Amino acid sequence: MANSPSGDSVTERLLRVLETFTPTRTVQSASEIGRRAHLPSSTAHRFIGELVETGLLERDEDHRIRVGMRLWELATRSSAALRLRQAAMPAMERVQARIGEHTQLAILEQGEALFLERLSSPDATSNVTRIAGRLPLNASSSGLVLLAYAPAELQERVMAGPLVALTRATIVEPAALRRKLAEVRRLGHALAPGFIEEVATGLAVPVRDPSGAVVAALSVVIARDAAVDAPLAALHRAARDIRVALESRAGGMGRVAASALA
Amino acid sequence: MANSPSGDSVTERLLRVLETFTPTRTVQSASEIGRRAHLPSSTAHRFIGELVETGLLERDEDHRIRVGMRLWELATRSSAALRLRQAAMPAMERVQARIGEHTQLAILEQGEALFLERLSSPDATSNVTRIAGRLPLNASSSGLVLLAYAPAELQERVMAGPLVALTRATIVEPAALRRKLAEVRRLGHALAPGFIEEVATGLAVPVRDPSGAVVAALSVVIARDAAVDAPLAALHRAARDIRVALESRAGGMGRVAASALA
Repeated sequence: MANSPSGDSVTERLLRVLETFTPTRTVQSASEIGRRAHLPSSTAHRFIGELVETGLLERDEDHRIRVGMRLWELATRSSAALRLRQAAMPAMERVQARIGEHTQLAILEQGEALFLERLSSPDATSNVTRIAGRLPLNASSSGLVLLAYAPAELQERVMAGPLVALTRATIVEPAALRRKLAEVRRLGHALAPGFIEEVATGLAVPVRDPSGAVVAALSVVIARDAAVDAPLAALHRAARDIRVALESRAGGMGRVAASALA
Repeated sequence: MANSPSGDSVTERLLRVLETFTPTRTVQSASEIGRRAHLPSSTAHRFIGELVETGLLERDEDHRIRVGMRLWELATRSSAALRLRQAAMPAMERVQARIGEHTQLAILEQGEALFLERLSSPDATSNVTRIAGRLPLNASSSGLVLLAYAPAELQERVMAGPLVALTRATIVEPAALRRKLAEVRRLGHALAPGFIEEVATGLAVPVRDPSGAVVAALSVVIARDAAVDAPLAALHRAARDIRVALESRAGGMGRVAASALA
């Protein structure tokens, strides 16, 4: 529909415009967006004007553009991310109250770990994950759990590489990753000491829906030298609580959560 | 750009498609979306196909359509909603730990209260608000706070009506609303007993950015017969903490939060 001379659809252009905004680049001029989205200047200005008019983007007093509150509202209010997150939130708060560093919920999304929620203590140890941020599957405890229970086809694709290292501890050797995934399935949890930052350990467990399918990974980030027994017990209890919460939701919430993985 | 024969832009069509999804209607067929968005059937199917291809919408095994995780991610990762919510979260968790029913953060958005966050105890009293949900400004304690500190022009527009009542206690008489707003400014908080549901009281305070501008309302919903002194003290302390958190954020977070109100 409505293809440009270069053949890209307006939907693709919209995606390119939205992708120019990042957690560290939240405000841009229309010209910057156009350049980064590879749109001709006049096209960019007209398209951005339309998006501002509908509230999907917003323009401030300095004519700088940001993602609109209306887009956030529409993308959030009916999303599977919100429903899974809401079912998990009470259990996550209990983990956070007990462990007190970072508690995170991630799903498998287009071959990466996408973080839906993160609770952090103000004086917790370092942590690179962000809400609505992504990490490679081999490079975090959440990713390892999601990959360990993923379809074999995705495992093979990830194994085929390239496997990116965020620190020296990240597993980038396919055979080692295969052994690690088998260990995750045998133990029922993933430990990732120093995978992302040298000083921190990620610890994750699978979250299952009422049908038993793994729909998310619940994790904590703790100091590298901290004991894991108490966090692990808290995570397993929370994963069970989330499964029960998914079950008790109306209208087949379990199915909804599962399809977030599709 | 790319107007249809009826003159609406593709951006407007996208907005209409997204608006067909609601918190209670999270999955639809392409035909249902087309009908609800007033799009011709062939247009709807082609457009939805494009949106699915880019991941902005998702199609499940039964060919039913939902809002895409990719859209949630793009709309969330750089949004002012997320940044304000992240600055407020530790303070909100402390309120929630102390009061234990519902703790909510709302901003003024296009003449309504838009809820960015809600923490709830599993066995808390009834509450109609939802994350990414809206309420009329006259009908909740959060809305009254946001309206009390809003530009005079918006106050006059709301006063001019229509003022919708959600229960018999909701203020729908303009003179009474004007008196209530003056009271909110004098007391520094809004009490809304039975405004939304007969059994519940909303209690809200303004959240200011470092410049002193009111950028949000922080509220709790408690049982109608509960004492308000402890919740009120917890809310005021939390609002001060959020202001400090906004100040300590890099890159003029205060301005960012303030512009969320524009």
